[in-house]
Amino acid sequence: MHKRIGILTSGGDCPGLNCVIRAAVSHANLTYNWEVVGIPYATQGLLERQTVPLSMHGWDLRGIDPLLNMGGTVLGSVNKGDTLAHADDILASYEALGLDALIAVGGDGSLKIIHQLATLGNWKLVGIPKTIDNDVAFTERSIGFDTAINTIVDAINRLTFTAASHDRVMIVEVMGRTAGHLALHSGIAGGADVILIPELPYTIKGLCEHLSQLRERWRRKFAIIVVAEGASPCSEDVDNAASCSTAKCGRGQYIAEQIANCSNNQLDTRVSVLGHIQRGGIPSALDRLTATVFGKTAVDLIAQEKYDQMLSWQNGQVVHVPIHNVLDQSPSLVDPHSYLIATAQSLGIYVGDRK
Amino acid sequence: MHKRIGILTSGGDCPGLNCVIRAAVSHANLTYNWEVVGIPYATQGLLERQTVPLSMHGWDLRGIDPLLNMGGTVLGSVNKGDTLAHADDILASYEALGLDALIAVGGDGSLKIIHQLATLGNWKLVGIPKTIDNDVAFTERSIGFDTAINTIVDAINRLTFTAASHDRVMIVEVMGRTAGHLALHSGIAGGADVILIPELPYTIKGLCEHLSQLRERWRRKFAIIVVAEGASPCSEDVDNAASCSTAKCGRGQYIAEQIANCSNNQLDTRVSVLGHIQRGGIPSALDRLTATVFGKTAVDLIAQEKYDQMLSWQNGQVVHVPIHNVLDQSPSLVDPHSYLIATAQSLGIYVGDRK
Amino acid sequence: MHKRIGILTSGGDCPGLNCVIRAAVSHANLTYNWEVVGIPYATQGLLERQTVPLSMHGWDLRGIDPLLNMGGTVLGSVNKGDTLAHADDILASYEALGLDALIAVGGDGSLKIIHQLATLGNWKLVGIPKTIDNDVAFTERSIGFDTAINTIVDAINRLTFTAASHDRVMIVEVMGRTAGHLALHSGIAGGADVILIPELPYTIKGLCEHLSQLRERWRRKFAIIVVAEGASPCSEDVDNAASCSTAKCGRGQYIAEQIANCSNNQLDTRVSVLGHIQRGGIPSALDRLTATVFGKTAVDLIAQEKYDQMLSWQNGQVVHVPIHNVLDQSPSLVDPHSYLIATAQSLGIYVGDRK
Amino acid sequence: MHKRIGILTSGGDCPGLNCVIRAAVSHANLTYNWEVVGIPYATQGLLERQTVPLSMHGWDLRGIDPLLNMGGTVLGSVNKGDTLAHADDILASYEALGLDALIAVGGDGSLKIIHQLATLGNWKLVGIPKTIDNDVAFTERSIGFDTAINTIVDAINRLTFTAASHDRVMIVEVMGRTAGHLALHSGIAGGADVILIPELPYTIKGLCEHLSQLRERWRRKFAIIVVAEGASPCSEDVDNAASCSTAKCGRGQYIAEQIANCSNNQLDTRVSVLGHIQRGGIPSALDRLTATVFGKTAVDLIAQEKYDQMLSWQNGQVVHVPIHNVLDQSPSLVDPHSYLIATAQSLGIYVGDRK
Repeated sequence: MHKRIGILTSGGDCPGLNCVIRAAVSHANLTYNWEVVGIPYATQGLLERQTVPLSMHGWDLRGIDPLLNMGGTVLGSVNKGDTLAHADDILASYEALGLDALIAVGGDGSLKIIHQLATLGNWKLVGIPKTIDNDVAFTERSIGFDTAINTIVDAINRLTFTAASHDRVMIVEVMGRTAGHLALHSGIAGGADVILIPELPYTIKGLCEHLSQLRERWRRKFAIIVVAEGASPCSEDVDNAASCSTAKCGRGQYIAEQIANCSNNQLDTRVSVLGHIQRGGIPSALDRLTATVFGKTAVDLIAQEKYDQMLSWQNGQVVHVPIHNVLDQSPSLVDPHSYLIATAQSLGIYVGDRK
Repeated sequence: MHKRIGILTSGGDCPGLNCVIRAAVSHANLTYNWEVVGIPYATQGLLERQTVPLSMHGWDLRGIDPLLNMGGTVLGSVNKGDTLAHADDILASYEALGLDALIAVGGDGSLKIIHQLATLGNWKLVGIPKTIDNDVAFTERSIGFDTAINTIVDAINRLTFTAASHDRVMIVEVMGRTAGHLALHSGIAGGADVILIPELPYTIKGLCEHLSQLRERWRRKFAIIVVAEGASPCSEDVDNAASCSTAKCGRGQYIAEQIANCSNNQLDTRVSVLGHIQRGGIPSALDRLTATVFGKTAVDLIAQEKYDQMLSWQNGQVVHVPIHNVLDQSPSLVDPHSYLIATAQSLGIYVGDRK
Repeated sequence: MHKRIGILTSGGDCPGLNCVIRAAVSHANLTYNWEVVGIPYATQGLLERQTVPLSMHGWDLRGIDPLLNMGGTVLGSVNKGDTLAHADDILASYEALGLDALIAVGGDGSLKIIHQLATLGNWKLVGIPKTIDNDVAFTERSIGFDTAINTIVDAINRLTFTAASHDRVMIVEVMGRTAGHLALHSGIAGGADVILIPELPYTIKGLCEHLSQLRERWRRKFAIIVVAEGASPCSEDVDNAASCSTAKCGRGQYIAEQIANCSNNQLDTRVSVLGHIQRGGIPSALDRLTATVFGKTAVDLIAQEKYDQMLSWQNGQVVHVPIHNVLDQSPSLVDPHSYLIATAQSLGIYVGDRK
Repeated sequence: MHKRIGILTSGGDCPGLNCVIRAAVSHANLTYNWEVVGIPYATQGLLERQTVPLSMHGWDLRGIDPLLNMGGTVLGSVNKGDTLAHADDILASYEALGLDALIAVGGDGSLKIIHQLATLGNWKLVGIPKTIDNDVAFTERSIGFDTAINTIVDAINRLTFTAASHDRVMIVEVMGRTAGHLALHSGIAGGADVILIPELPYTIKGLCEHLSQLRERWRRKFAIIVVAEGASPCSEDVDNAASCSTAKCGRGQYIAEQIANCSNNQLDTRVSVLGHIQRGGIPSALDRLTATVFGKTAVDLIAQEKYDQMLSWQNGQVVHVPIHNVLDQSPSLVDPHSYLIATAQSLGIYVGDRK
């Protein structure tokens, strides 16, 4: 039976989204002879009832399919749609667009919105997790995480040579408001001296003592601090936090000011906010593979009429879990007792005061 | 109790070996206050009873530890030692060098030799798997594999633009004498049209028909073929294989000649043998993390007096398995029924005639 | 006055060709309101009177113009066309296609053919030099050279770690049949011990002595040899050259066999033929800039009605020279008395026996 | 006659500094049998009379010389020394350290200080220009510029996919307080829509009109703005500039606020301040070559007893110019009539209101 499948990408972009689209379209076209249409800008495209035709050779450049190598999403995305105000219109779009099923690629915030709509509208939904934060529950891998770690490690390498040349404390602020996976993975892989994440409270005193020890005991004249944007100091430091000179001041700047204080301006600090480059870049091999397998399997789930599922990577296998299970669960945070935290401590990296 | 731990790297080099060394030395020094010495050139260093002192700041460049970023192994390696002829001398070296335990990083061939020696000599051994082929049994990840896939994908990208510009069939010969993981992963991630691996027999007829179909049905004027060096055609093609013009002729060259034949020289083929660059490069973030966790955990196993174990990555966790279990097992090959083979077929990639 | 300009790319592809196309189209469209059409596959497209429409947004991917980042050429190329047999047909194509001028991007071989046709057919031609060999006379830069050097340096880096890990002599065969610029630039930038180029004769004796000295005097256990595919030994070695085991045997393999002989198989050699990856890759910043300036200036020359010119980079400026001057001149070879040869010798690199 | 040569690196670090050191040491050791010692931290090392021994194999990692691949400087640097307060002590250091000549690698600020000291102290000085800003007079190339452009182009590529996915105006703030070379080169090579540099005044009105036109005329929904940190708006906008919400607010943030104003918050802007990563990275092939040739030639100048000279790249050749000529000259700025400005305008890039 012929099907017309919609696909959309929602939330912050990341490398690998286009690989999902490519795999889903190829598999649907080749194996099932189904049609796939793109919904541009996620809920906004639904609201406006727009579609983009997708085929195996949609953006052909001498036969080169650029989707595999492109970061971002050719379908566009929105970070949040004013969906509640227009829920009825959006709900009606699924049928108006003649969709038989919908593949939604998003982080847990985006998937939650789409899932609510799908439930209300009785849509046939398959979800695919993407997030450079890697905090979607029930899956070991989300699309974009591996590329983002590699991007940050590359940046840390660049900054390390500058820090070492000038004997500086280089503070690298990375994404991660509630989950520290990105900071933890990239900090260990990049050779950081300090990793500050939201899950593990730290004290300015503990941080400054560690920096002193690096200088005095290990004769190391520079230091690399990787700090997640949401890494908060312990409560005893909260008042100090207020001293941060501007409201817009990020976590990296706050740390820099505290280090200046505790070292009596003896430590020369610099802050580097990596920002949006963390979302960019050519997808890594692992992200391409994960995205390709997810895109392909999403189409198979539709063939098997298994809906309201999210694809997941568990124990080296692609599985699917009821999407509401995922969304009811808290986001996946760094476990303070995990092997990576233990590894960081073994290497002498400061990851907070508790051990 | 103080310990003196030896560490050696054996077999073909790959990115990540130095990350293991760095992590083992740091953890042993910092956490246990143990000494770690390197054994240069694996069994050859044992035979000659040489050691290299290793400390947390062994190769300090303004405090930058280059071990994290360096491919290869600072300890040197040998691909095979004439160990049987000198087994008694080597066996005695462990005690002569005053070792309390030995960490050996190697592929299954190398680990087998070291394990035999360890059993004969009653050495306290912990093994760590490394191989760009990813064919060590009982572990999902071996050090070097992730970097190698990324290297090959980068090479495929470069070759794709050249192939497309000249409407050529570009044959990319990659490593893999018995296991096709490298070809399969990089071929899917790199957007290949054909992937030939040792585990799945192919026919020249099937291959040529696929190339025709690409041209005629999909209007695709070029093609990318990723072939593992050990990918053999079906028996019906064996006689043709003999026609390959030189004994040194590799698998890629053989395929090129067969395509020239079957297309009456209408297809313009080029062969690119990636060779040793597949072993090189700055380690990827994932290889750095795996290597760091393995190096750290190997030291912990010694602290727990768990010997004759190999570290392994299973279901998102670091575990250890009796090393003889691993070595008794056949190398891990591509399962023809795996999700990656199914994914390749879904995307229209030719991976042999059986489905 | 409205014009219709043709553009073609001819000869071996290289990074930067698409940047020329992009700049020429944008400038012609925006500044002069002229039309630009692509001639696919150079002379073959002329013969078959095919055109590809080109506009500022021809291959739009969400507004991203991929031409800047793509290697190869979206117009396709041919290495040689059987142009003489069809010269009359091709000559008539210029008028048949309604062209007012033609921009041809090629190396000196390709430009010579196009120039001959242009002269016979009274075409209005502007030539742009591209070649990874950088051997076009009268211009310091040709498109593709800078990216190719960076690609080779990256490969040398990868191979160096493998060579050092195994104490090997790694022979890296690079492009360059008559000109050694690529080998010389990449060898110095990549830290080679030996650079063999067509312009400077070497002896196997001199080469082997250098390798011995590296081992014995400098205690360096491995070596990196960069050899251009056209680097010939001195006449005294010619007979030895015949010993190379197959007719297809490349220069790298020949060197490997000679080193095995002269070292009584004591040196462990490996050959890595970089091949087509040298033509690939995302264009470097310098190649993008050169290509963009050339593409823009070619359109300006047409506006000024200056034809039969080739664009050239001289003394930090874009100039133009009569194309027949370039083509009458021998290709630009490495001057044995140049500062780069002197630099190589200063660093202790073997570049042949004469000093 | 034996000589003892000092070498120091001063000012902000950049890729290629270590290549200079390596070449100078190798050439001095091999060709002249001279000694080279490093002066750590430039003037601070002079003041403290410290030296670092340098030899061809100083930081040997299995024979791999890491100097070629390392960013930063193994000698350390200072951005400014409190040299005037200690001038007498520093002046005496040259003789106290037994130096016969001094090679100083620096930007024009650093070279000016060293040159003043050299004149007062009668030191034998050779200067080598380095700066990612490329604003040293009398030389076409300074070390570090080519790598920095490539780094920025890579960042722009990453940001472009994110900007396009979300229909954003992405503002990329790059280094350049008085000279816009870095912004101009990377903006053209990276495909920017707007390039703002200190040399060309712009108006917020002109900028906003250009952004409107991109949207309306070219249907381009996103835009990339590359802005040098010192790019000032025209005087009519100065009052608006004061509205920038914080004193620490950078040029990128200022532009973002102005665009928000002029578009009535219809344009979604993001700012990415590239910061210190612009100084990092593995040196590009061109920077390696320039640095190697400069390091080698500096030693030759000492052999020829030509002092008070700065090495320079002019018209494809290495030359030397009296260092005071360079320092008396204003820094090299972007010429508003240069071919690159004309090229940018031809491609439809907004580079300010004057044409």
